Amino acid sequence: MTETTKYLLPENRIPRAWYNLAADLPEPLAPVLHPGTGQPVGPDDMLPIFPPSLVAQEMSVEREVEIPDPVRDVYALWRPTPLHRARRLERALETPARIYYKYEGVSPAGSHKPNTAVAQAFYNKYDGTKRLTTETGAGQWGSSLAFAGALFGLPVDVYMVRVSFEQKPYRRALMETYGARCVASPSEETESGRAILARHPDSTGSLGIAISEAVEMAVARDDTQYALGSVLNHVLLHQTVVGLEAMEQMAMADDAPDVVIACAGGGSNFAGLAFPYLGERLRGGRDVRIVAVEPSACPTLTRGSFAYDFGDTAHLTPLMKMYTLGSSFVPSGIHAGGLRYHGMSPLVSHIKALGLIEAEALDQLECFAAGVRFARAEGIVPAPEATHAIRAVIREAEACKAEGTSRAILFNLSGHGHFDMQAYTDYFAGKLRDEAYDEAALKEAIADLPGVAA
Amino acid sequence: MTETTKYLLPENRIPRAWYNLAADLPEPLAPVLHPGTGQPVGPDDMLPIFPPSLVAQEMSVEREVEIPDPVRDVYALWRPTPLHRARRLERALETPARIYYKYEGVSPAGSHKPNTAVAQAFYNKYDGTKRLTTETGAGQWGSSLAFAGALFGLPVDVYMVRVSFEQKPYRRALMETYGARCVASPSEETESGRAILARHPDSTGSLGIAISEAVEMAVARDDTQYALGSVLNHVLLHQTVVGLEAMEQMAMADDAPDVVIACAGGGSNFAGLAFPYLGERLRGGRDVRIVAVEPSACPTLTRGSFAYDFGDTAHLTPLMKMYTLGSSFVPSGIHAGGLRYHGMSPLVSHIKALGLIEAEALDQLECFAAGVRFARAEGIVPAPEATHAIRAVIREAEACKAEGTSRAILFNLSGHGHFDMQAYTDYFAGKLRDEAYDEAALKEAIADLPGVAA
Repeated sequence: MTETTKYLLPENRIPRAWYNLAADLPEPLAPVLHPGTGQPVGPDDMLPIFPPSLVAQEMSVEREVEIPDPVRDVYALWRPTPLHRARRLERALETPARIYYKYEGVSPAGSHKPNTAVAQAFYNKYDGTKRLTTETGAGQWGSSLAFAGALFGLPVDVYMVRVSFEQKPYRRALMETYGARCVASPSEETESGRAILARHPDSTGSLGIAISEAVEMAVARDDTQYALGSVLNHVLLHQTVVGLEAMEQMAMADDAPDVVIACAGGGSNFAGLAFPYLGERLRGGRDVRIVAVEPSACPTLTRGSFAYDFGDTAHLTPLMKMYTLGSSFVPSGIHAGGLRYHGMSPLVSHIKALGLIEAEALDQLECFAAGVRFARAEGIVPAPEATHAIRAVIREAEACKAEGTSRAILFNLSGHGHFDMQAYTDYFAGKLRDEAYDEAALKEAIADLPGVAA
Repeated sequence: MTETTKYLLPENRIPRAWYNLAADLPEPLAPVLHPGTGQPVGPDDMLPIFPPSLVAQEMSVEREVEIPDPVRDVYALWRPTPLHRARRLERALETPARIYYKYEGVSPAGSHKPNTAVAQAFYNKYDGTKRLTTETGAGQWGSSLAFAGALFGLPVDVYMVRVSFEQKPYRRALMETYGARCVASPSEETESGRAILARHPDSTGSLGIAISEAVEMAVARDDTQYALGSVLNHVLLHQTVVGLEAMEQMAMADDAPDVVIACAGGGSNFAGLAFPYLGERLRGGRDVRIVAVEPSACPTLTRGSFAYDFGDTAHLTPLMKMYTLGSSFVPSGIHAGGLRYHGMSPLVSHIKALGLIEAEALDQLECFAAGVRFARAEGIVPAPEATHAIRAVIREAEACKAEGTSRAILFNLSGHGHFDMQAYTDYFAGKLRDEAYDEAALKEAIADLPGVAA
């Protein structure tokens, strides 16, 4: 061994509590509004689709939320995840920067998503839920919830966007291996699905339709609840195990980040790494720059409006104040499917609006190039979402080189790309483009915002 | 935390030496013979395709072979791998057995193969090789060597069986992401390839043809060497990091295995876990049963002849004494591609012939059923090869239950199944069968053995 490459914690160092950023915010979050009344929603409005424990977490402003032992027991299958020092990438870049990454791809589903899936499955089981419904696009979230459902003996129905159901059978096979029931959406099982099929028998589906189907089934059945993989406060809360572990591991490395970088779609991956560091800073601790990276094709934080909007395209959800491209905005078909969301979680939007974090939008091609460079240096092929963080990290490291300064850069490698090799195939075949967003469509979608004042 | 689930070692506990079983054998291995002269091959016969360091390891009878620091540095990207206690599987089986598994799926390529790929790439680089060639079927070995080549700056040419090249593009994309050149075999690049194409322009290729192409290129070029992913002594040697780590981790668990189980195709995965335990036993240490598991469709150890045979179908390799179904035997197309080899490594064959280990052959369907059961209990979807070990483990655990005794069972989970979801899809769709071997074809292939006496 000539140098230390990674920092491992034993399983008894899995955090005992999640960190809740709401406790340290300089200003409280804008309330979530009922779309009918325009009034703030309360716990009662959420109970038809979420169990009481998660509703309480959604509203909580306690700084620490204890992680139940059964959740830590399942986390222990892969957590604490390793923190790596990217020494080979540093050498390839000839940079004086110290680059670290927290690697979430070691989870059974290959990404960070199980951090919240396990917690949500546990609380639903604990509160008496008999069945969970959810939606999935390419299948990363659906397979994570299927995994968690299997471990807690909770059946999971996944409404999967039909085009993915047919064209991406491998994530579907993963869900079925875990015992989940996978339904192509739109389906004949729900009113929303039947209504779409009546008008468009050949509909290939959309995430918006799939959400509508999953929520409808949860509302319709007393024993069934709904689970969401990002955006909401309790989901971001569960992801903070990532940053809490990273803090301890950076201390093992006798270092601390000057910059924390993560990609952001709905916001849960970003929050997981960044919130514990931001909280420390807000409480008067160490200063650290925090950067959210999004695709140029879906530039929510950098080009969206900070306004009330629906979380789904079918307008079934409450209104949330967030950065949004408008719920009718359809981003182009870039391969980082997890970053193609029209909105951004209210918590991440709030801290961006307060100027507490930075954001940048990057093009698809430079991100894939960065991903390939990373794979050849560090050995891990990153998921397309994570290549956005990597591109930003390389820029930062190149800036260090140009300035002749050494900064510590920490980023979140949210998942491996083993299920995304078609994207790399297309990249090498020269089939990918830098899909800029459609300026006219964005204007139209922004004009369509419900226009509710805070 | 209510119970310990896994045992982790820090990276400075990566073994400092591989374990060489040749040092502890009660009888020496039969010599490898030159196919032309019938005489034992010496180092000079191997140097056209392997670098001097690896030729020396192939012949070595030293008990410990030091692992160079640059190899340990790369191992540290994912090693030491975790040892898990399969408590959820134990509960699901209601067995008093203690089940442990060593998980090699956390490597960048998702299997145990990089353990030797990294070592082979290092020694080739060290000995001045400028380019490596190899063959690959589904791509597990090719992607591992591509990964290792990338980290040591060594270009890799992978001759990939054409049918896999066309039908399984994802492993190919993984190799190309690591920078390897992937060539559909048979190709126009080699005499062997051109000869096949002249006779069969539509040839879909075979592992035998791909080996011939890779070896031909290594022989033809002074600066190019060949790398093999299993069978040979030095390959098995490199895999012993698995068992050496497991021994230390079992001690952390304050336990020791009564039975060690691993699947066996060419033998390197089996050897990696089993040889350190067998060596300890042979030196008068703790008694432990050791079981190799193979598919019923390719029952090399259980139904093959122990005889001299070629390693490839084209008869370019030296003659090795091994359990073999005959080099002309073509196993049916089961999904555990890594277990479809007509022979078995000479070292594993030797210890089986000496009665030092057990072997059993299992059907494909019961193995997939065991794999699904494992995934739903432990969360990890196993590669089809590894499901063979899991099926054997479940049987052993059920025997413990029937007997009312608790034994410690240790097995090697050689890789995850994220690249094998088509196999699970076919399994759930009822498309898989128990492909028994063809008794008549086996007899014919055995009759075709070269008939060289030891």
